[in-house]
Amino acid sequence: MVEYADASPEVRAVYDDIMSTRKTDSINNFWKSLAKNPSTLRRTWEDIKQIMAPGTLDALTKELIYLAVSATNQCPYCMASHSASARKKGMTDEIFGELMAVVGMANETNALAAAYRVEIDEQFRTSGP
Amino acid sequence: MVEYADASPEVRAVYDDIMSTRKTDSINNFWKSLAKNPSTLRRTWEDIKQIMAPGTLDALTKELIYLAVSATNQCPYCMASHSASARKKGMTDEIFGELMAVVGMANETNALAAAYRVEIDEQFRTSGP
Amino acid sequence: MVEYADASPEVRAVYDDIMSTRKTDSINNFWKSLAKNPSTLRRTWEDIKQIMAPGTLDALTKELIYLAVSATNQCPYCMASHSASARKKGMTDEIFGELMAVVGMANETNALAAAYRVEIDEQFRTSGP
Amino acid sequence: MVEYADASPEVRAVYDDIMSTRKTDSINNFWKSLAKNPSTLRRTWEDIKQIMAPGTLDALTKELIYLAVSATNQCPYCMASHSASARKKGMTDEIFGELMAVVGMANETNALAAAYRVEIDEQFRTSGP
Amino acid sequence: MVEYADASPEVRAVYDDIMSTRKTDSINNFWKSLAKNPSTLRRTWEDIKQIMAPGTLDALTKELIYLAVSATNQCPYCMASHSASARKKGMTDEIFGELMAVVGMANETNALAAAYRVEIDEQFRTSGP
Amino acid sequence: MVEYADASPEVRAVYDDIMSTRKTDSINNFWKSLAKNPSTLRRTWEDIKQIMAPGTLDALTKELIYLAVSATNQCPYCMASHSASARKKGMTDEIFGELMAVVGMANETNALAAAYRVEIDEQFRTSGP
Repeated sequence: MVEYADASPEVRAVYDDIMSTRKTDSINNFWKSLAKNPSTLRRTWEDIKQIMAPGTLDALTKELIYLAVSATNQCPYCMASHSASARKKGMTDEIFGELMAVVGMANETNALAAAYRVEIDEQFRTSGP
Repeated sequence: MVEYADASPEVRAVYDDIMSTRKTDSINNFWKSLAKNPSTLRRTWEDIKQIMAPGTLDALTKELIYLAVSATNQCPYCMASHSASARKKGMTDEIFGELMAVVGMANETNALAAAYRVEIDEQFRTSGP
Repeated sequence: MVEYADASPEVRAVYDDIMSTRKTDSINNFWKSLAKNPSTLRRTWEDIKQIMAPGTLDALTKELIYLAVSATNQCPYCMASHSASARKKGMTDEIFGELMAVVGMANETNALAAAYRVEIDEQFRTSGP
Repeated sequence: MVEYADASPEVRAVYDDIMSTRKTDSINNFWKSLAKNPSTLRRTWEDIKQIMAPGTLDALTKELIYLAVSATNQCPYCMASHSASARKKGMTDEIFGELMAVVGMANETNALAAAYRVEIDEQFRTSGP
Repeated sequence: MVEYADASPEVRAVYDDIMSTRKTDSINNFWKSLAKNPSTLRRTWEDIKQIMAPGTLDALTKELIYLAVSATNQCPYCMASHSASARKKGMTDEIFGELMAVVGMANETNALAAAYRVEIDEQFRTSGP
Repeated sequence: MVEYADASPEVRAVYDDIMSTRKTDSINNFWKSLAKNPSTLRRTWEDIKQIMAPGTLDALTKELIYLAVSATNQCPYCMASHSASARKKGMTDEIFGELMAVVGMANETNALAAAYRVEIDEQFRTSGP
């Protein structure tokens, strides 16, 4: 992992932007690990900064969506770090419980739809996403 | 698939509840496929009815979470049917775009976290989900 | 896809073994597709022949396990071809229903275990698989 | 995690049912973690109690199916806890070995079927699951 | 899908860059679908253009890696479109066969490592990725 | 895990072949874990020895493909052990960075292709893999 003190100017610029955007004075291990490949660090950070910023969807909803994917993929780091982000943005125990009830149910019915080889209904076929 | 006309009273009772809960007069292929196993049909419907009902999270947010999981799992039926449900509950093109930007990013960074074998930060370790 | 009439002697030898082992006179598209790479065809067939043969677990149970994985992975070809194999070996609608109830539940609770970041109980830690 | 001593009457009722159904006097971390969301705890337990009970498939076969899904999804908690359950229900080293040989093979051929873009054979298309 | 003739100037600029970078005069359905969300279109294209360009790894190797992920995730569109890209960059039947043999084997042993709950060897623990 | 000193002649023969093929004098935990099921040990080793040997693709490229699958599947053991193998075969930090940029991007666009329900382009449909 690349610590701030040892970072190149290019990496430091990203670290500085992360800290100022997130109003924090520490850098997560995720970024310190990516920093071995500065172009991956910068591209990933620029993308996340753009994508996770509040838009039509608010910042908490975006974190919940992120957690839904991470639980489905069994990513322990992602669950740990984004649970913390979601808490900061207002996630309560009750919200987490409802989120994960949907995530569990979706994973269950995704498997059932594949298993029963359910044909897509005519009315869902003609409409785009 | 089990059509309404051919359904047992047990299956019909579930079909009736689906149609009255969802204010529709047709049954999706998903339910018609599960109906070959009435106990699976009933349990899955009861769970979904409870879980997808508006709570602390509203019904649209729950559909977005459902779509996030289904895209991650590559489930074509689930994307088709729940995109339609989400549209009915107010999903616009813009919301769909923001949703999927987060889903794509989460799938990308989930893989990166595994690949770089990122150690969970001390401060994320002690806090629960 | 490589049809029998166009197959090299090496590929034909595998096709012949498949047909005599399975007591059938046709070759599935899966094998015809792999046949473009004869060493993959032969190795995959030899492995499957060994693994799917009745052992301590009977042939039907092995097909059910195969279906459990294929539904989890969302593999349409695998569900289609192995549902047929399982039917031949005695899978009824009722067995399929119970199988998929477990598969759905396992996919649900797998996601929940990741999401709630459940720590492995002391007594499960010391015992191997 | 919610310990029995700190549990609400609603959570205790579920804990009591788990212990009496499973003839044990301890509660796994999985349930203690879910208990932060009592409705998720109760619904998940009711579903598992119904689904994992012996039916046409015996209890051991159901545990094997559960393990097949959990290995495919890379769920460490689920492998640890359900390996232990399966052992109690009679899983030997030999059964585990045969189970996992099928699971490994299914994961391999699932990927191959997707990669070679194998078209579903006509005879598998017309038969349901 | 957004056709060139109907595209906004912002979308057209991306389409033009795709066609000139790839030396082709048509746009794949993937881009036409993303174009409903211009910022997703542009960001995804900019990322792919940067990432898939030859670097220390040549363009064909990058396509093979892309195919490895897509087969693992069971993504039919991705297999179809990137098989074609890989062919253009020199992928032969023999290369495809070797690629997919590794992909199949990796999916198999990934499941086995999870199932047998293999502990990470001391010497692999201290080295980073 | 089965240590060399406690291994049956059948298991020792595989261990000896692993050590001589890989020019090493130790056996990884993966093999020691599989050794509880000698036929799985032998079959898996024979397959890996054949598949990972340099062919049209060189040994390093094969390791990169293996890592791409393992990151996608979130397999910590596989990332740890095969990162080490890839390093021995020449993987630099720069190669690892480019590899994982492609892996991350592929996981992102796989999800997007499913989400946007992108139809396979006519020209990709007629060409095989």
